[in-house]
Amino acid sequence: MKRILKAVLPVGFKANGISCGLKKSGKPDLALIYSKLPAVACAKFTTNSIIAAPLVVSKMHLKSAKRFQAVLINSGNANCFTGKEGIKDAKASAGYVAEKLKIAKNSVLVNSTGIIGKRLDIAKIKKGIPALVSGLSVAGAHKAELAIMTTDTFVKEISLSLNLGAKPVHICAIAKGAGMIAPDMATMLCFIMTDAVISKKVLDKALTAAVDASFNCISVDGCMSTNDTVLVLANGAAGNKSISGGTELQGFSKALGTVCLELAKMVVLDAEGATKFIQIDVAQAKNFLQAKKAALSIANSALFKTAVYGRNPNFGRIAAAVGASGIEIKEEQLKIKLGSLKGKFVHLQVSLSSGKAKCRVFTSDLSPEYIKINAAYN
Amino acid sequence: MKRILKAVLPVGFKANGISCGLKKSGKPDLALIYSKLPAVACAKFTTNSIIAAPLVVSKMHLKSAKRFQAVLINSGNANCFTGKEGIKDAKASAGYVAEKLKIAKNSVLVNSTGIIGKRLDIAKIKKGIPALVSGLSVAGAHKAELAIMTTDTFVKEISLSLNLGAKPVHICAIAKGAGMIAPDMATMLCFIMTDAVISKKVLDKALTAAVDASFNCISVDGCMSTNDTVLVLANGAAGNKSISGGTELQGFSKALGTVCLELAKMVVLDAEGATKFIQIDVAQAKNFLQAKKAALSIANSALFKTAVYGRNPNFGRIAAAVGASGIEIKEEQLKIKLGSLKGKFVHLQVSLSSGKAKCRVFTSDLSPEYIKINAAYN
Repeated sequence: MKRILKAVLPVGFKANGISCGLKKSGKPDLALIYSKLPAVACAKFTTNSIIAAPLVVSKMHLKSAKRFQAVLINSGNANCFTGKEGIKDAKASAGYVAEKLKIAKNSVLVNSTGIIGKRLDIAKIKKGIPALVSGLSVAGAHKAELAIMTTDTFVKEISLSLNLGAKPVHICAIAKGAGMIAPDMATMLCFIMTDAVISKKVLDKALTAAVDASFNCISVDGCMSTNDTVLVLANGAAGNKSISGGTELQGFSKALGTVCLELAKMVVLDAEGATKFIQIDVAQAKNFLQAKKAALSIANSALFKTAVYGRNPNFGRIAAAVGASGIEIKEEQLKIKLGSLKGKFVHLQVSLSSGKAKCRVFTSDLSPEYIKINAAYN
Repeated sequence: MKRILKAVLPVGFKANGISCGLKKSGKPDLALIYSKLPAVACAKFTTNSIIAAPLVVSKMHLKSAKRFQAVLINSGNANCFTGKEGIKDAKASAGYVAEKLKIAKNSVLVNSTGIIGKRLDIAKIKKGIPALVSGLSVAGAHKAELAIMTTDTFVKEISLSLNLGAKPVHICAIAKGAGMIAPDMATMLCFIMTDAVISKKVLDKALTAAVDASFNCISVDGCMSTNDTVLVLANGAAGNKSISGGTELQGFSKALGTVCLELAKMVVLDAEGATKFIQIDVAQAKNFLQAKKAALSIANSALFKTAVYGRNPNFGRIAAAVGASGIEIKEEQLKIKLGSLKGKFVHLQVSLSSGKAKCRVFTSDLSPEYIKINAAYN
């Protein structure tokens, strides 16, 4: 398994990113991913009850079609809390792409990130699509990445290859998210492309496991976005024997897990205003859920996060956060080991003395800069 | 019903507060409330699994005794996460008070607030108790209030009288808490004294209702303290007919509700680093729990709170917080009305278009000052 922190598209994929004018800054804001071969697709979306219009439309398409060829993503506007007009706009944008690429409308998936509650300027998107499509290239993934970023301070790309049987299989992913799993600006989006031959059912299982151990184990401020999406497209161009089990599935799942985990860690590393990258390991739990509850309660504690920012080894706040998590725990069962707070990387180990399960969560500290960024953003 | 924002003890109560040396600053840190007449007592404690030693001891006493005469409270150390020694220290401190006042040990309740995880300096408390007891006076409630404060910037006192039948009944309460319902420094403590004649059962019901609509409806940072306590002592000195129902119970409950609500609002007003006092009214909910979930999810959203700090009327963050609360809600049902963000007082009204229930919650904004205070505290 070889990996590089660049976006190198698997066989059969093209991508592009342009500026269509949604961002006042003039930075790239419209991205397209295209697969010549119709691909199976699986996605994990936010569990927020208020979900953005493009997610509603993508969910419809994921139900009505079996294969997919394009993903259109805009930044600068989340197209969320925009009512029926928002749905209409999301559908229209998929329509423009389908028309230009001469593919079925429901084979186009759509996504957005940016401010909530403002209507999308669909005319700008329509106007941008011809250039977006004509500029599609096998080297275009980095351009697509640039066009999905918002407050991100660095690009989040990874590519990886492995052999399944004698066939080389490639996975490439781009992501955005400045730390928070949060509404309206720091939405987390991740698009994964692979040329592996794999059924939707098997792919979905592998994706669920990969996301549970990565994007579902990071938290910056406990806020949940209305637009969060992890989407994978598998177009089968590698020609491997369809992955269904055994060492092939193990290898592919491990690779997919690595892709998700590395990107999730980059999201936390890029957390808004953060000065620390915190790894929380909760061990000796009764089960995974108990470990995760305890770990996320610490990760979401404003007091713990400010203590780490202040290099203040405050064990009491960790104990209180575990106690507040809703798990059953007695004081004498709780063991806490906090590493040095001096460097960028902080390691916290917590034992619950209740069993053998464990969970690892990544988070950041909470700094005055976070407030500065989020007080001003609009 | 007359009320003043000063602590005037009901008939039969005395109080005092002194400095025994727990606080490095030399400020008052040891308080005592005493009732000559044995009083019935009810308490609401934190639901954190990790609870402080004095709460463990007070819970034992509340089970083993029927009447209570004293409450000892120290600030400067929470006596939490201190193991068996912590329990021993809490018991010992109750013992010293009992001995000096010549009352039963289990008629003494104890409480602490301050840093978590450090052993209490019980020798200092022991040494302070003779002066604490000899200084007890009917005018001593303000001194007790001063001795329970930690990062509070103003005192939180209220006194109120009402007539039940022909008898005047008094309620007086002192509280501490600098905004957060939070571990290790901003614990919320409230001690309520009344001379009303009332059974434990009826008092407990009235207290539950009062706390549910006040202290359980405030949030500053979503952190839950290991020491939070609301305690009421009723010594019966007023000689009214025992409150059991009808207009008497209504009147008393209303008064108790007012006492708790006013103090809860003071806690939010004194929130660490806060520049805003935010009232969130969620209406047209299916039931109270739904309204409360939505309201607290907004109140605990770091993004909403930073937006208010930045005077940024960001509706998207409010919608996202409601959607993330776990309640079932459709976008078209959600109506948001946010008042001016210019002044100290901010009013947010949210309608869920789902029923007739409602909930009011108070919170503060999140400022860089909050982080400064909590990064440095130890």
